[in-house]
Amino acid sequence: MKLIAFDADDTLWANEPNYIDVKLKLCELLSHYVSEETLSQQFYDSQIRNLAVFGYGAKSFMLSMIETAIELTNGAITGSEIQQIIDVGRKLLDFPIEVLDGVNEVLEILSKRFDLMVLTKGDLFDQESKIARSGLGHYFKHVEIISEKNEQAYERILQKYQIQPADFLMIGNSLKSDVLPVVHIGGRAIHIPYETTWAHEMVTDEQLTGKSFTTLSNVRELLGLLETVNEQV
Amino acid sequence: MKLIAFDADDTLWANEPNYIDVKLKLCELLSHYVSEETLSQQFYDSQIRNLAVFGYGAKSFMLSMIETAIELTNGAITGSEIQQIIDVGRKLLDFPIEVLDGVNEVLEILSKRFDLMVLTKGDLFDQESKIARSGLGHYFKHVEIISEKNEQAYERILQKYQIQPADFLMIGNSLKSDVLPVVHIGGRAIHIPYETTWAHEMVTDEQLTGKSFTTLSNVRELLGLLETVNEQV
Repeated sequence: MKLIAFDADDTLWANEPNYIDVKLKLCELLSHYVSEETLSQQFYDSQIRNLAVFGYGAKSFMLSMIETAIELTNGAITGSEIQQIIDVGRKLLDFPIEVLDGVNEVLEILSKRFDLMVLTKGDLFDQESKIARSGLGHYFKHVEIISEKNEQAYERILQKYQIQPADFLMIGNSLKSDVLPVVHIGGRAIHIPYETTWAHEMVTDEQLTGKSFTTLSNVRELLGLLETVNEQV
Repeated sequence: MKLIAFDADDTLWANEPNYIDVKLKLCELLSHYVSEETLSQQFYDSQIRNLAVFGYGAKSFMLSMIETAIELTNGAITGSEIQQIIDVGRKLLDFPIEVLDGVNEVLEILSKRFDLMVLTKGDLFDQESKIARSGLGHYFKHVEIISEKNEQAYERILQKYQIQPADFLMIGNSLKSDVLPVVHIGGRAIHIPYETTWAHEMVTDEQLTGKSFTTLSNVRELLGLLETVNEQV
């Protein structure tokens, strides 16, 4: 194994709960205009539509919140109310990072034996800030923040670092982004599910059929699994 | 010379004119609320204040436009007007890329002799999209999109690619981002000014005193300058 890459959000630290919390606050702010159910559906549609133009991340989320609020109120929402939405959304850019249980301990041990990488998708500035706030940066030899985690993106990374797929292990909470594309290009992947998964990251059972990867319930189980793996094959 | 890096916006293609154009449209949209002068000053202040939270790029620009509009109208601006601002801002994410005069020809020649890199700051998704739309991507062996171009950032890049500062040449339109930090860490820099420079990228004469770099009036002049330089020193 020459390179072990970790996803960041909801693999190294809790992220999704902050987004869920901000979305709840948006529902509260708009509760006199629209029901939570209507808002949720419309907001999800807006997010997915905007992904192609804005990409992932907090600023994209904020712009989608604003657009959804305008659309659902037929433009009647006031500037002051939109400022409240922006203020709520800003929290996504500086919430305190809660490192997940076992992560520090596992990175401390693995970083002595392997080259580790943070490999995350999203907003560059936002993700860099979270890595800094996490205090985990020193465990990682490389940091790669990319706009989408698909097969082409993983191939580019492996080419850049001149790593064969068989020497690459990806660890993350998303089957769609961290596991399936890596397995498809011949790499190894370990799935560590997180308590909540954004609907956009869901995959079907069919997509998983015949795919080989390991699922762990806690990051600490990595240590046993990697105990017998050589650093440089 | 082992690596030649080009800045992207206003070095390879025109960018700033699109931002100026969008800002003018913002002035028009808000003309019944506020004068162009007041708006310009307030918007610049908002942009600089938000840089530390949002970083550079189109989405950050859009959020600053919205905040400025709300602030200057004391919250009286309507949701519909804010949607117009968002629609104007979206153009920043898909304007047609106008490659600057001589760039294609110079990259065609240099890419056969040197490893070329696009090294740009800004929003990851936005910058990747511009590189793709420019049709210049195939000239570049490497693409690095970073959140800030300071000495530490350049040092990280050189370390990552194992390049000595003396073997690195940076070419760009911004003295602040492309020239001074590179010169400070012992690299070489070529300045090709563009017709307009964002106020935030301005430097003082004092900052330039004693700094050694070359200024060209057109990218084609690179060819003569690099004619006698060896590919791999």
